[in-house]
Amino acid sequence: MSLQGSPDGLLHEGAITEPWEVVQQALDSVHPADAAVLLAQYKPQDIAHIVEILGPHQVLAAFEFLPFEVQKETLPHLSRDTVVRLISLMRPDERADLVEELDEDFQDQLLSLLIKAERQNLLKLLTYPEESAGAYMTTDYASLKATQTVREALDELRLQAPKKETIYYAYVVDASRHLIGILSLRDLIMARPESTVERIMSRQVISVPVDMDIELVAKEMRHYDFLAMPVVDDENRLVGIITYDDIFDVITEEATEDMYLLASLDTDERISSPIMRSVKLRSPWLFVNLGTALIASYTVSLFSETIAHFVVLASLMPLVAGLGGNAGTQSLTVVVRALALGEIEDRGKWMVVLRQMTVGLFNGALCGALLAMITLAWHHNPWLALIMWLAMIFNMIVAGCLGALVPIILRKLKLDPALGSSIFVTAATDTGGFFFFLGLATLFMDRILTHGV
Amino acid sequence: MSLQGSPDGLLHEGAITEPWEVVQQALDSVHPADAAVLLAQYKPQDIAHIVEILGPHQVLAAFEFLPFEVQKETLPHLSRDTVVRLISLMRPDERADLVEELDEDFQDQLLSLLIKAERQNLLKLLTYPEESAGAYMTTDYASLKATQTVREALDELRLQAPKKETIYYAYVVDASRHLIGILSLRDLIMARPESTVERIMSRQVISVPVDMDIELVAKEMRHYDFLAMPVVDDENRLVGIITYDDIFDVITEEATEDMYLLASLDTDERISSPIMRSVKLRSPWLFVNLGTALIASYTVSLFSETIAHFVVLASLMPLVAGLGGNAGTQSLTVVVRALALGEIEDRGKWMVVLRQMTVGLFNGALCGALLAMITLAWHHNPWLALIMWLAMIFNMIVAGCLGALVPIILRKLKLDPALGSSIFVTAATDTGGFFFFLGLATLFMDRILTHGV
Repeated sequence: MSLQGSPDGLLHEGAITEPWEVVQQALDSVHPADAAVLLAQYKPQDIAHIVEILGPHQVLAAFEFLPFEVQKETLPHLSRDTVVRLISLMRPDERADLVEELDEDFQDQLLSLLIKAERQNLLKLLTYPEESAGAYMTTDYASLKATQTVREALDELRLQAPKKETIYYAYVVDASRHLIGILSLRDLIMARPESTVERIMSRQVISVPVDMDIELVAKEMRHYDFLAMPVVDDENRLVGIITYDDIFDVITEEATEDMYLLASLDTDERISSPIMRSVKLRSPWLFVNLGTALIASYTVSLFSETIAHFVVLASLMPLVAGLGGNAGTQSLTVVVRALALGEIEDRGKWMVVLRQMTVGLFNGALCGALLAMITLAWHHNPWLALIMWLAMIFNMIVAGCLGALVPIILRKLKLDPALGSSIFVTAATDTGGFFFFLGLATLFMDRILTHGV
Repeated sequence: MSLQGSPDGLLHEGAITEPWEVVQQALDSVHPADAAVLLAQYKPQDIAHIVEILGPHQVLAAFEFLPFEVQKETLPHLSRDTVVRLISLMRPDERADLVEELDEDFQDQLLSLLIKAERQNLLKLLTYPEESAGAYMTTDYASLKATQTVREALDELRLQAPKKETIYYAYVVDASRHLIGILSLRDLIMARPESTVERIMSRQVISVPVDMDIELVAKEMRHYDFLAMPVVDDENRLVGIITYDDIFDVITEEATEDMYLLASLDTDERISSPIMRSVKLRSPWLFVNLGTALIASYTVSLFSETIAHFVVLASLMPLVAGLGGNAGTQSLTVVVRALALGEIEDRGKWMVVLRQMTVGLFNGALCGALLAMITLAWHHNPWLALIMWLAMIFNMIVAGCLGALVPIILRKLKLDPALGSSIFVTAATDTGGFFFFLGLATLFMDRILTHGV
């Protein structure tokens, strides 16, 4: 993938056996993201050792690419001085994310060591709710004044460049930091040097409020293809920017979250979670499912007499329930994903429910017909085949209806549309499948029995 | 969201009643992405009308933001001249994506109208396989020569700027277009004007081959936080770049795809698909599921005699199957997502299977115990409760095992790990659930019956 040879061989898992110059060279010769992968193979105390010897400035770029867990575990092994220098050097949003992960004692200790301006900025960033634009933004944005000439603006950006996350978009603010315009570096270098920022800036500024849900911010950035999105407070004062690389992560994490919720998984679980943690995170969902499964089980018990008369029903009933569950999950997934991507408008939601029911009707008729034929061939009983067909149609309509309705209702209740929805939908299709099939069988029992088995 | 008022009111659905100046003003006053949303409300012939009157150059930005379907439907309503001008103006990757959607006759017609250089470029882009880096890249990248001074390089970029997708990363190539270095515009404006490109460029160039799967390219760009990724041919010659905005879409689409495959949905289905298309796309999966459900059904039929003896089993057996299905989906989803995000290394995959089985064992014991107690309270039969507990444990181990194993095997077979995996896993947990529960019940029938109902 990368054009230069990877120096993996230089750093071995868990032990530093190489001279420092070799380690340093290995870290220097690759992209910081790859250096972080190399670093992450060491124990936290060894990483701390490397940070102490090479100096925070030297390892900063790689350190910022380390997972928070590793960053957090490394800090206690560093000297006070190094911690302060390292934290001070970090970008404000990375710094806030890390500090947020620390326990309160360590947080307080650290805050007391920072200089006042840094402390205030950090405290401010820590106040934004977890999934808001504020929590993801960086305060290191490039800003310009409207009255500057293009030449002055370029000089200004040259000065700001080393400290800013991006200088490719520059934001034009007035004396009270109100956001009045936006300018790209491309616009700037293409303009005549004696022109002014005011003349070439775009006044059609699109921005997001600091408390906006980051998922919606991601949607906006995808819509506009922005490299960075300005974040403003409720008086339209610029407070930060969110950059495209944060959005890469947001889109990925939101998708994971939806997938997990659709599968009744806690969003905190990871493939690397310890076994007992996975057990603990999954069992509440299984208990909920147990509750809904008991309803289906109780439904079957209502028809014990029917089953006792004609035990073949017990082997056929899972077909209706199972296919209904699959159809319900199909409708559910299409609707959950469309809600997440903002593809369902408020006024169109009844139409969505109706369409899913119609798809259910047709697929129920189709699969039901095939299943009826199989039943006929297997048990030579046309009445049994008929009720199989009817039960499939009824249950697939229920599947389409609830597959669409459950996420729409959850969204209406301001909950995540995927939250536990598959459990409710399959509970309905299981119960519905058993009820329709066994209910019809009870109704037509005489006719079924006259055709014998 | 946006700071300026939205002029939605000016354009009404499906009919142009406003004077052209008003329409033009409405389109001009918003971001092209929003102008595209306004345009998309019209019928294709009306959009064509707007393009003809305002001119391709004027509407280009908004047109590029329109969904391909709308672009495609608009073209036949345009004059030949306008089509050629519009297509020529489009960015190469957008153009190729659009032309790919057209039917062959129209494609040929269009190709014959383009100038030779454009035609060759377009034909080249059309040859890359659908999900490869080549299919997503643009050929409008900024390039520099190593020997240029910084001042010359900046002048060069100023010249290239209007035609290039981004000038924030510039690629340094030799006479045969071999990629030898990379330079950001930030580096350039911070460097002394009399320095040379050679001196300040980074030689640690990370690039991707033109035939690399776009999903892997997205993973690389997320890893490095790149704004653009250079794409090279097999002789390391630069052929294009992929920009961050394409990656927004790739990450989103890949997530949708995985979610769809996990739910046994065809990836071509959309919430807006016509009903009969949804029926057609979903039914094959339902037929597959029907086949696997028949295995479970057949398993139950093997135990008809047991059920006839003790009909309560028919109402309890769905509990074991249902909970197993849920647990299997949990394991499956964790593993599928981890595979997609590259979190499972090849040597670690047996460990993953083992861990999922262990989680299954514990959750089976836990849920099984609760279910056993409920069974005891409901049916006052300790032997029934015991086999319920054992069947739950066995089935949950199967769930964990296959939930992990199926996607790992599919990946090994170079298939998508999510492809139909939920059908196989639930087939196994249904069949397993029925088999363990009814099998144990058959073994212990004497003891169960002595405790009566």
